[in-house]
Amino acid sequence: MSPAPPSHVSTLSPDALEALVERVVSRIQHQAQLEAVPPDPVLRGTWQDTTALRRLVDAGATRVGTDGDAPDGSRQLARYIDHTLLKPTATRADIVKVCEEARRYGFASVCINSTWVGLVARLLDGSRVMTVCVVGFPLGAMVTVAKAAETRQAIADGAQEIDMVINIGALKGGDHDRVFDDISAVVDAAAGRPVKVILETSMLSRDEKIVGCAVSKAAGAQFVKTSTGFGGGGATVQDVALMRAVVGPQMGVKASGGVHSSADARAMIAAGATRIGASASVAIVTGGSAKGAY
Amino acid sequence: MSPAPPSHVSTLSPDALEALVERVVSRIQHQAQLEAVPPDPVLRGTWQDTTALRRLVDAGATRVGTDGDAPDGSRQLARYIDHTLLKPTATRADIVKVCEEARRYGFASVCINSTWVGLVARLLDGSRVMTVCVVGFPLGAMVTVAKAAETRQAIADGAQEIDMVINIGALKGGDHDRVFDDISAVVDAAAGRPVKVILETSMLSRDEKIVGCAVSKAAGAQFVKTSTGFGGGGATVQDVALMRAVVGPQMGVKASGGVHSSADARAMIAAGATRIGASASVAIVTGGSAKGAY
Repeated sequence: MSPAPPSHVSTLSPDALEALVERVVSRIQHQAQLEAVPPDPVLRGTWQDTTALRRLVDAGATRVGTDGDAPDGSRQLARYIDHTLLKPTATRADIVKVCEEARRYGFASVCINSTWVGLVARLLDGSRVMTVCVVGFPLGAMVTVAKAAETRQAIADGAQEIDMVINIGALKGGDHDRVFDDISAVVDAAAGRPVKVILETSMLSRDEKIVGCAVSKAAGAQFVKTSTGFGGGGATVQDVALMRAVVGPQMGVKASGGVHSSADARAMIAAGATRIGASASVAIVTGGSAKGAY
Repeated sequence: MSPAPPSHVSTLSPDALEALVERVVSRIQHQAQLEAVPPDPVLRGTWQDTTALRRLVDAGATRVGTDGDAPDGSRQLARYIDHTLLKPTATRADIVKVCEEARRYGFASVCINSTWVGLVARLLDGSRVMTVCVVGFPLGAMVTVAKAAETRQAIADGAQEIDMVINIGALKGGDHDRVFDDISAVVDAAAGRPVKVILETSMLSRDEKIVGCAVSKAAGAQFVKTSTGFGGGGATVQDVALMRAVVGPQMGVKASGGVHSSADARAMIAAGATRIGASASVAIVTGGSAKGAY
């Protein structure tokens, strides 16, 4: 008797996958007003209006004000943000700085390359801020075994979430089995920690985005994510709405790349994003705006 | 008794490394006319002059004309070129095409991301064209264990050379031990296959380039290489001459990024390059010029 296969590997035949994709494409094509996805009520509004804010709290919006900070919602917004530093030139001193900022402003996480995971996990120890590690980054063209090895090491070093890049060339070439197996191997290696799949939407057609979302969901990922910030394009409201429509309400959607201001971040959340990836995080929560690739 | 350490790991203390770097910097600073590094005689000349070509052959330049092709030296030039396709959007069909081109024009190798090594090694089987795989590409910020795993898998899949990216942030932060250990681990994982260390020169100061070369040599690499093609800058004649001066005559120097024409390639070789990385390889050997990031 051969051993039982892992729970979500090889359970999706090419035919079944094609059928899934067909169903998803069909559902999307018949769904009216994609861009009218309801905004998250917790973050709707300008937050300059404290009456409106109080009304939301009265209505049961438990996250509002629980951190006891200003009524502009900046701390609530901070909890959506993966504070991100992925530049190859980043030094230890730069990494220490983003960890300090993440603690101070209450960001959801610090998102870094795998060489920094051990340091970041130590610096964030005892805080609510998570350690998030990118894998196969930013090209996604790393062999599956190496993506899995990078994931295992990141988890061992203290990563709590994994942001992997999809095999873009395999996706564009129609090799969906390979895309599925690649994601599945990372999900297995993450051993229960959430995996986000970066699609690099600027390089994909609409159908490829849909297939990428469907395969990510089938392979056990917990989030889909728009962009690496290195691929010449970033998150758009349209892509976030499309991704949210494909994956449904249970999965996370992360908008990343080109999110420079509070207005950008709120627009993404209104379109269906549940996480924001940004390097301009401090500007976003302090009401400013910053330029940068990510 | 503890087991003996691997041959070149941990043999270089921080003090010894500092001393090495000091010696190298000192040697460079006192070396006159860096840019007057002697050109490779095999490729010196315009190659439009068949008399000069015949004179070189008579003088013992064994590689000239041995492939029986045109007297412009294009086939000799081809043997210097790693024909390169690293775009994340490359599909199987694109990879097959570069392998066919490499066989037809006699390039030194096909250089690809690790997801494609198995396919490329099969397609090149029985030819003189090598399979070259990039590792930790293009940011170099992948944890060492993952770079080693990617290297081992690439070798198992048929890679004959490894082009790894140096840990740029560790280099810039002055953490030379970490840079050394990272390269050493890949050299060990490559199990005797040559390792090229990509410095990403456009992101480094002159001193960082010198240290990067010195540490690469100390850690057992066989080549230093200028650029990934994804870092916003490419090879320059000045950088190639500097790298050649630091590593001495025994190591290889690969010029990559922005090499678009035969003239570009010959200038790099004249400055001390022994290998060229290019995606415009066909244009280079057929006398044209092409634009592109790499």
